Amino acid sequence: MSTAARFGIVIALGALIWFLPSPEGVTPRAWHLFAIFVATIVGIMLEPLPMGAVALCGIAAATLTGTLGLSEALSGFSHSVIWLVMTAFFISRGFIKTGLGARIAYSFVMFLGKRTLGLGYSMVATELVLAPAIPSNTARSGAVMYPIVRSIAEAFGSHPGDGSERRMGAFLIQNSFHGNLITSAMFLTAMAANPLAVQFAAEQGVVITWAWWALAAAVPGLVSLLVVPFVLYRLYPPEIRDTPGAPTMARDRLTGMGRMRRDERILLGTFVLLLGLWVFGAQVNIGSTVTALLGLSILLLTGVLTWEDVLNEKGAWNVFIWLSTLIMMGSYLSSLGMVGWFSDSVGALFGDTDWLTAFLAISLIYFYSHYFFAGNTAHISSMYAAFLAVALVVGTPPLLAGLVLAFFSNLFSSMTHYSTGPAPVLFGAGYVKIGDWWRLGAAISVVNIVIWLGIGGVWWKVIGLW
Amino acid sequence: MSTAARFGIVIALGALIWFLPSPEGVTPRAWHLFAIFVATIVGIMLEPLPMGAVALCGIAAATLTGTLGLSEALSGFSHSVIWLVMTAFFISRGFIKTGLGARIAYSFVMFLGKRTLGLGYSMVATELVLAPAIPSNTARSGAVMYPIVRSIAEAFGSHPGDGSERRMGAFLIQNSFHGNLITSAMFLTAMAANPLAVQFAAEQGVVITWAWWALAAAVPGLVSLLVVPFVLYRLYPPEIRDTPGAPTMARDRLTGMGRMRRDERILLGTFVLLLGLWVFGAQVNIGSTVTALLGLSILLLTGVLTWEDVLNEKGAWNVFIWLSTLIMMGSYLSSLGMVGWFSDSVGALFGDTDWLTAFLAISLIYFYSHYFFAGNTAHISSMYAAFLAVALVVGTPPLLAGLVLAFFSNLFSSMTHYSTGPAPVLFGAGYVKIGDWWRLGAAISVVNIVIWLGIGGVWWKVIGLW
Repeated sequence: MSTAARFGIVIALGALIWFLPSPEGVTPRAWHLFAIFVATIVGIMLEPLPMGAVALCGIAAATLTGTLGLSEALSGFSHSVIWLVMTAFFISRGFIKTGLGARIAYSFVMFLGKRTLGLGYSMVATELVLAPAIPSNTARSGAVMYPIVRSIAEAFGSHPGDGSERRMGAFLIQNSFHGNLITSAMFLTAMAANPLAVQFAAEQGVVITWAWWALAAAVPGLVSLLVVPFVLYRLYPPEIRDTPGAPTMARDRLTGMGRMRRDERILLGTFVLLLGLWVFGAQVNIGSTVTALLGLSILLLTGVLTWEDVLNEKGAWNVFIWLSTLIMMGSYLSSLGMVGWFSDSVGALFGDTDWLTAFLAISLIYFYSHYFFAGNTAHISSMYAAFLAVALVVGTPPLLAGLVLAFFSNLFSSMTHYSTGPAPVLFGAGYVKIGDWWRLGAAISVVNIVIWLGIGGVWWKVIGLW
Repeated sequence: MSTAARFGIVIALGALIWFLPSPEGVTPRAWHLFAIFVATIVGIMLEPLPMGAVALCGIAAATLTGTLGLSEALSGFSHSVIWLVMTAFFISRGFIKTGLGARIAYSFVMFLGKRTLGLGYSMVATELVLAPAIPSNTARSGAVMYPIVRSIAEAFGSHPGDGSERRMGAFLIQNSFHGNLITSAMFLTAMAANPLAVQFAAEQGVVITWAWWALAAAVPGLVSLLVVPFVLYRLYPPEIRDTPGAPTMARDRLTGMGRMRRDERILLGTFVLLLGLWVFGAQVNIGSTVTALLGLSILLLTGVLTWEDVLNEKGAWNVFIWLSTLIMMGSYLSSLGMVGWFSDSVGALFGDTDWLTAFLAISLIYFYSHYFFAGNTAHISSMYAAFLAVALVVGTPPLLAGLVLAFFSNLFSSMTHYSTGPAPVLFGAGYVKIGDWWRLGAAISVVNIVIWLGIGGVWWKVIGLW
């Protein structure tokens, strides 16, 4: 579709909604914001301009039309959860810059890499270690993991496009993809759009802290990380299964890197401090954003990161603009009553259904509608708040509802090759055929749902979420 | 001084103030914020790290110590005046990218450039045209004007370091420098730290709009732009006085550029629209920040600027961090009573002095203390709010006081080669000796003060500022 056509659709859709009469129970102002919001979300999906530019135009439209006051429209830029993600973005640059990310990966390969399945677990373990401090799952996958996966596959003679894909590369790529999604679901700071869910939940009175998120996700997440590589290994077996050379290769790479340098040690220490404060910060009254700011300050003061590194982190500035804008619009849709109106209307449809059945339906619809979305952000922005509100209306325990929908906001990306940032990167590598990608994605989606709602459900009962 | 020593000074100073008992009438919380603020300002002056990094560490310190709540500490990031400057920064990239800035400069040279003095006026006229939309006076001077000044000087055989400096280059450089400062004083959006003054004034109930700033500065500014090049021409005459070849050279350059392209035309149209709305926006209820957002949206939608251009505008992101931080700290120093305490204490010293005499003293002290500052930002952050408060205490008409101190916040940069961003750039070109720079700077400071307080004073009476 041409850029002009995509523009046309966005503007026509926004105008159409704008000029429709607002439904009963919705104020004209809420309805107008809804029109701008829909145009923004559709703009983010169709991308006549990059996401950030679409978001800025959305702010311009909201303020020019007087739908939002200027200070309302700019309020997103100082949300604490935004600055948690921004700061984590800057910190994550350190893992790439210092090589600590690669060192961690090769260390795991040295211990686990004698068989191909073990290599898969090494990659997943590295993802798990890095996830809490690298909120761009695309950067984690594309900049840290992919080069390593690729170099291992190539070392074992598995190249894209010459018939050797299935020797090893195809399995490792799929394994890495699903590992990325599961770890993204495990920490608030492991995926750039996770804070959207947290913020939308907060506006409905559901407070999700960094520590609660990590605690609730720990058991189902670890089980998924153990089970999914094995399932992939069965469903999509690599031709090479034993890789006695891999640990040696990893040892060589590590030898080549030399001993840990000062910067790596400082980064590692800072990272441990961050994890400690993210988990136990509430006891000493230090919140997660303040923790992240402290970590960034340490890295700047010690010169591990330069200010130039921060300014060059274009991905972070990009996220800053669109994430702030969407959080802001979502907030006002909520406070102007649009979300409540929707959830009351849909909630009524469930009638007397018990909350467990109703919530199961709600969360599965939420999950599988991701077939229609390119990227988590548009999906979370347009559906999370409304679906959470419906879940609360039917009587789901609030924190349970908020967390399950937040976890699913990552896990739902398993199914397509356009589902989230890492998908096009890894799919684009050319190791996995599109049919395989979709078939395996569908299978893994079921595995994840069973693990998270089944084992997770028991765990959440134990920790008192319901 | 070594980086470690500068660190040491910053931290020692902050700690010293922190642990001193707070003066009577100042709460411990205000005093602690004052300690962090002083450390931040001194950090900005000594630069153990770049300004932005110092600012972020300041935020980390304020939140970690509990001096400010997190949402207080982040509140600066959504100030509307910040987004006015940010947006103008992005728009200004268009003048460099499309070549419209150079085209305007050469057009003036074609008409005014037959004599060296006329060349000087061409440069100053270009500054005047560009100033409203280029809030980085360093970018305006360094990226747009300097290359043109340099190429003209070189074309007339005036090079740095070979004894030919005074033929033409030295005069043009000085002329460009002072022209830059005067135009910076003429528009809210002509210098990155101007919004600091506006915001600090707003917190004391003095509302300075874009249009009021431009109106009040128009007459003294235009007179300065006419007088200062002439004074420089007399005090520091170029050896070459007639430049019959310059208009031809400019015509050749313009011919080389060809006719205005689509992007330049769109930029020019957008710029005219912005100026119109900045001046008359109040009548149609469109504020200056919304105007700027509209302008940026137009440039993005038409592809004159790409989103990549916006993300690459590192200067803007840098300003964003330090400006937001300083505005935020200034706000809380004010609202916690620190500024009021200072102004009451100092105001008492003036006793029964009439406000005119007192304000003259206040503004001259403010002006000449710039000998001690490298950069406008540290100076405005540390002194503007307090000096304005004193001026109000002694009875100066509020808007007059706010504007004069704001104008002086630009004009005071004439005196040294480290006074503001363009100074090291232009001084560093090597055309002007340091003794000449200071001598001329002192002379021009007097000329500007006489014009702005004298002719400006009459004009401000006419428009009812006092």
